[in-house]
Amino acid sequence: MNYLTNACVDLLREVRIKNPLIHNITNYVTVNDCANAILAIGASPIMADDVAEVEEIVSISSALVINIGTLNQRTITSMIIAGKKANELHVPVVLDPVGAGASSLRNKTTQEILSEVKIDIIRGNLSEISFVAGLSASTKGVDTSKADERNDAEAIAKSVANKYSCVVGITGQVDVISDGIRVAKVANGHKLLSKVTGTGCMTSALVGSFCSITKDYYTATVTGITAMGIAGEISFIKTREMGTGSFHIGIIDTLSNMNSTYFVERAKIDETEY
Amino acid sequence: MNYLTNACVDLLREVRIKNPLIHNITNYVTVNDCANAILAIGASPIMADDVAEVEEIVSISSALVINIGTLNQRTITSMIIAGKKANELHVPVVLDPVGAGASSLRNKTTQEILSEVKIDIIRGNLSEISFVAGLSASTKGVDTSKADERNDAEAIAKSVANKYSCVVGITGQVDVISDGIRVAKVANGHKLLSKVTGTGCMTSALVGSFCSITKDYYTATVTGITAMGIAGEISFIKTREMGTGSFHIGIIDTLSNMNSTYFVERAKIDETEY
Amino acid sequence: MNYLTNACVDLLREVRIKNPLIHNITNYVTVNDCANAILAIGASPIMADDVAEVEEIVSISSALVINIGTLNQRTITSMIIAGKKANELHVPVVLDPVGAGASSLRNKTTQEILSEVKIDIIRGNLSEISFVAGLSASTKGVDTSKADERNDAEAIAKSVANKYSCVVGITGQVDVISDGIRVAKVANGHKLLSKVTGTGCMTSALVGSFCSITKDYYTATVTGITAMGIAGEISFIKTREMGTGSFHIGIIDTLSNMNSTYFVERAKIDETEY
Repeated sequence: MNYLTNACVDLLREVRIKNPLIHNITNYVTVNDCANAILAIGASPIMADDVAEVEEIVSISSALVINIGTLNQRTITSMIIAGKKANELHVPVVLDPVGAGASSLRNKTTQEILSEVKIDIIRGNLSEISFVAGLSASTKGVDTSKADERNDAEAIAKSVANKYSCVVGITGQVDVISDGIRVAKVANGHKLLSKVTGTGCMTSALVGSFCSITKDYYTATVTGITAMGIAGEISFIKTREMGTGSFHIGIIDTLSNMNSTYFVERAKIDETEY
Repeated sequence: MNYLTNACVDLLREVRIKNPLIHNITNYVTVNDCANAILAIGASPIMADDVAEVEEIVSISSALVINIGTLNQRTITSMIIAGKKANELHVPVVLDPVGAGASSLRNKTTQEILSEVKIDIIRGNLSEISFVAGLSASTKGVDTSKADERNDAEAIAKSVANKYSCVVGITGQVDVISDGIRVAKVANGHKLLSKVTGTGCMTSALVGSFCSITKDYYTATVTGITAMGIAGEISFIKTREMGTGSFHIGIIDTLSNMNSTYFVERAKIDETEY
Repeated sequence: MNYLTNACVDLLREVRIKNPLIHNITNYVTVNDCANAILAIGASPIMADDVAEVEEIVSISSALVINIGTLNQRTITSMIIAGKKANELHVPVVLDPVGAGASSLRNKTTQEILSEVKIDIIRGNLSEISFVAGLSASTKGVDTSKADERNDAEAIAKSVANKYSCVVGITGQVDVISDGIRVAKVANGHKLLSKVTGTGCMTSALVGSFCSITKDYYTATVTGITAMGIAGEISFIKTREMGTGSFHIGIIDTLSNMNSTYFVERAKIDETEY
């Protein structure tokens, strides 16, 4: 077991003790799963998106997760106001640029958020992060396009991390996490994860949960992403041919049972320092 | 078995026969669970929140449940207009003041609804109801705060019930229901219920379902709250170490199978008259 | 096995190969289930409803599904703009007039959409389609009313199909699909399907998925409706007395495992040509 797996286990233990409050401004497709994933890992979710309350809610929270999955004008304003307040209070901000590359609204909003708010962690798929990197992404709806699969995730993660002085997590067959210098690769997960809506959103919610209890956002991001990968693997072992409905429930089940043994036995985290 | 348990069993039988329509103006986090809980217990849900239709919808409904879980300006207006119409038509109104005490918007809205609409039943956790009672609540997001756990639920329930001439249901380790004179305590439930989002919202939806078929809102509130407590107990027995995803599904399963035997064997309802 | 069952099996195989993108403007009650049903059957969902992006999203999609389950002014505009763009690009449009007949807003919106947008497929229950037919429907919330159960589904389906030059799918104990000339009746399904919210919405989402890969909307609609019926039957066999929570998950499970054997062994599709 390497030092990163060790550090993940520590964060996992700590989040369950501290039970931090995580503020989510998110989409209405996967919001229930995000709330339940946050509860399952040991944190406490609050979903609030009205401009009249987001500053107050972020003030009592330990992390803010901004997810642009079902954008509308009303919530864009809330995202930015909440993000600025979080910056002021040194509350970490996670951005999940769902579908960036798929519409001008998503592109413009992603750029607006990135220019108005200091984002601490960006978590997305390769198409979305390619767009953030300034590459011409060809996002297929909210999924990674075949064309983008050829992009070099490691180089893109480092480039975006340096551009925005943040941690970047690109999830895919192998997940890549970088703070601009270090690069971790996580080989956990299962292909069925792409057959359940919201596994990306839940991953961002987990990343937010772990970032709320440490300043080491790089390790926290590795922890959140690895936890979801392991949850996918174990859920598949338990549900097999049952189908994607049971697999979905199995993900939440596994997150609620996530423990050091799972990490020690299963985490496939590799790191290269540069 | 005491007379209250008996009365619960009668309401349970009746709701399945009458299949009343329950109008919900609610949040987008737990709305699917609320609809499925209402169906499971034998009623019929309709979710409608546009100001252009809420009066008509409440006119064909047998109860209105107002839940402020994800407030925004658009739906606040709808809540009040629907509430006034419900009052006019003598349709019972349940208020679930989710997160009252956690932001000025939630506080102001709770007070506005309580002053504009005659609320028949208020269902919340101890922090939320403490706020309604005029105590300085320290709601932790949408959960009861540690500080508020020391408050005297029984005194608060009675005080709020008298202040607003309504029935109050405070859910917690022991649930307390009061109409201002009578106080019932329900010792059902399971601690895992706090690890699934929406169990409070679902409880309010069940309370609305039972209040739609009787004028005895006190008994109806006891029935809804006890049903959720029993659902938590049985779901835990059936799902055990599986995790919170399966426990969540087990709650809906148990509600759909809820019957007199479950109540007779498990209901722990104590009543003190004053 | 008749030719229609054969054609269904072909579409089922094809949707999994082509993995088309399906744009949904839908309600926040059942949106997660719709996305997961679309993924389970082999297509890819995108939910987007802001007026600033719906034209672009529909331009990269292979079908548009408009569902009026939780209407509000903001999304009504988006529905019409997206629908017009879909028409321009020959992207098929499915309308699910949830609760038509239950409020003036739903009635007016249904009529407005039908007059502004060329709808290719209308999928609803008998009360909703009776309203569309110009009959005085007495929709009970979002469910078919007892009064409407006496209406002649076959005549209504044909009449609406001719009126709007579209395919009509009326789901109920026996589902009726018509293109104005042909009429197919599907005797699959299970009564528990009415005890889980969103089974109608999911059916419309499946219909959209199949219509995205063929110009033969009649067969595509038969396929989507039959798939849901079979999913209900098999889910019931697998979950039995467990309850409606497990039955719900079993529907998604079965959709993800849906295959030619299920269709060959179970599809009860009868067709009368006129």
